[in-house]
Amino acid sequence: MNYDIAWLSMPSASLDDNARASAHARQQLLTKPAGSLGQLESIAIRLAAMQKTSTPTLENVAIVVFAGDHGVTEEGISAFPQAVTAEMVRNFARGGAAISVLARQLGAQLEVINLGTAQPMEALAGVRHYDLGHGTRNFTQQPAMTEHQLACALHAGRHAVERAKLSGAQLFIAGDMGIGNTTATTAIACALLKHAPSKLSGPGTGLNADGVAHKARVIQKALDLHHPHCAHPLETLRRMGGLEIAAITGAYIACAQMGIPMLVDGFIATGAALVATHIQPSTRDWMLFAHASAEPGHAHIVQALDAQPLLNLGMRLGEGSGAAVAVPLLRLACALHNEMATFAEAGVSEQTP
Amino acid sequence: MNYDIAWLSMPSASLDDNARASAHARQQLLTKPAGSLGQLESIAIRLAAMQKTSTPTLENVAIVVFAGDHGVTEEGISAFPQAVTAEMVRNFARGGAAISVLARQLGAQLEVINLGTAQPMEALAGVRHYDLGHGTRNFTQQPAMTEHQLACALHAGRHAVERAKLSGAQLFIAGDMGIGNTTATTAIACALLKHAPSKLSGPGTGLNADGVAHKARVIQKALDLHHPHCAHPLETLRRMGGLEIAAITGAYIACAQMGIPMLVDGFIATGAALVATHIQPSTRDWMLFAHASAEPGHAHIVQALDAQPLLNLGMRLGEGSGAAVAVPLLRLACALHNEMATFAEAGVSEQTP
Repeated sequence: MNYDIAWLSMPSASLDDNARASAHARQQLLTKPAGSLGQLESIAIRLAAMQKTSTPTLENVAIVVFAGDHGVTEEGISAFPQAVTAEMVRNFARGGAAISVLARQLGAQLEVINLGTAQPMEALAGVRHYDLGHGTRNFTQQPAMTEHQLACALHAGRHAVERAKLSGAQLFIAGDMGIGNTTATTAIACALLKHAPSKLSGPGTGLNADGVAHKARVIQKALDLHHPHCAHPLETLRRMGGLEIAAITGAYIACAQMGIPMLVDGFIATGAALVATHIQPSTRDWMLFAHASAEPGHAHIVQALDAQPLLNLGMRLGEGSGAAVAVPLLRLACALHNEMATFAEAGVSEQTP
Repeated sequence: MNYDIAWLSMPSASLDDNARASAHARQQLLTKPAGSLGQLESIAIRLAAMQKTSTPTLENVAIVVFAGDHGVTEEGISAFPQAVTAEMVRNFARGGAAISVLARQLGAQLEVINLGTAQPMEALAGVRHYDLGHGTRNFTQQPAMTEHQLACALHAGRHAVERAKLSGAQLFIAGDMGIGNTTATTAIACALLKHAPSKLSGPGTGLNADGVAHKARVIQKALDLHHPHCAHPLETLRRMGGLEIAAITGAYIACAQMGIPMLVDGFIATGAALVATHIQPSTRDWMLFAHASAEPGHAHIVQALDAQPLLNLGMRLGEGSGAAVAVPLLRLACALHNEMATFAEAGVSEQTP
């Protein structure tokens, strides 16, 4: 490649095994039957190891929504017109989208990054425009991105994480917006996991059964074209991904390198997480998984990542919305871990031997 | 019965069908694919119907923990000694228990009601003591409660809901504390649902496999003794229930009568919800279910109530902790419903026909 992406192979930060052990020991002393807080216990312990502290906290949460358009929409694979990508970027900026509401409720930073919409966009407060092209090219005909576009998109994700780090973020959430991006993510997942498109394809924003069957055929066509060239996951990402998917992939790798826990959203974000772990397996150590998406292919990617998402609410919106909804659970897990009394402190009898 | 429980048969408040229809219509206009917020959409719509408003909110949440001891602990059916019930009441009052931490984090009112611990208790700030006996009697030998005790416990639950209503509560959470109460709840559920104890019995606070098998035999003994007398669910509750389980049952019936949405916690609370719906089926309309407990019998009770709990985090603590953890999801569901822009407001294109 003719652009520097050597940073992708830098190692992930290490977890603090002492903090993990000490948090695990503390959980056994709190006034509750051992294990009775379920996943809230294991989350607090993992966050302790990531934050290198016995008292993890998540006051400062950074949410970044990455947007980009997809040339493959020419193939009629989405229930919504391509114009919606840019329209939703404006909706994020005005505060009317789901993720805008959630970020306000959580007191989280929200940044929107437009990597390349099909239609040119005006300057908008709270939106950072990268002009990497008018969306990707139709990947049933040619690679979705040039090598330069891919490198720039990966960098855009990394830079977002650097800004989050500088602002003190204790948790990073990446959201996605891009009409057509379930098609791109499904294609990538099929290539990396060697599944048939008919197995992973789903309705996205609202296709009917015929639409889903057509989408699977479009993906198969792309796989037939690109498969011989996809020896490396980066090439799979370049040929069938999207600008926002590449940016999220870069962001995840950077989070692990900089030691910031990431809370992975649904289908698109989990697809990017899959690419990130194929590029750099240790990225997985820094991932928490927020929710099981209603998009049917999600379960297969989740399984490949050996993940156990916290929520299963039938959500399938994207934007980072499922991850945002899970933030209060993580915060409560930390509060319980930090504030509950121990058996000794409270004078409560322990389990009968 | 020699104590007035006629109030139990008063009808539940009615839901507002207009508010429900209007909330449902609004959900279709918000800038997201229809249905893409999953259960968060249906919750907002149900809360709108309960609160008789198009903009439901849950700022004011009342949590009441009901505590009581169980004579059946004589049979060796719990991993913790009976003294823990009173010790945990003190822990609630001092703010060190899981539910204390969660109530603080949520800004929720927390009231603790001691209906009758085996050991006498001192006065404690934030704890209301009812002296209904030193716990229940061992229900493998005789009915757990007298008719008077049952009536008083049901009333205690109702009075807690009346206080919550007066303080403006928009959501009611009942928690439980009582060593031995998974045994009592399992016995009630077996009687009402006609399941074998071996099917519903579980580890509770931490029994091993032998302990669970013993617990199932203890429950079978109680069922053999009481079954001929259990034509009415109130009699099932009196003979095999607990003071705190009866109080929660009374609270749930009162919530429905007073039109307060209730968020049902795990195994014990769901058992009380089952009794409440057997007494007054329309109580079900006012119930939201917070989480799937790790106690194995819970799934059967949930199924009988046709419920779909929001969370499945492997929690099995009681105290109302699972319900408290779900409160932020309900609040976010309301915020999304109330604050998201519509397609028209945001100038976003709708789905292609």
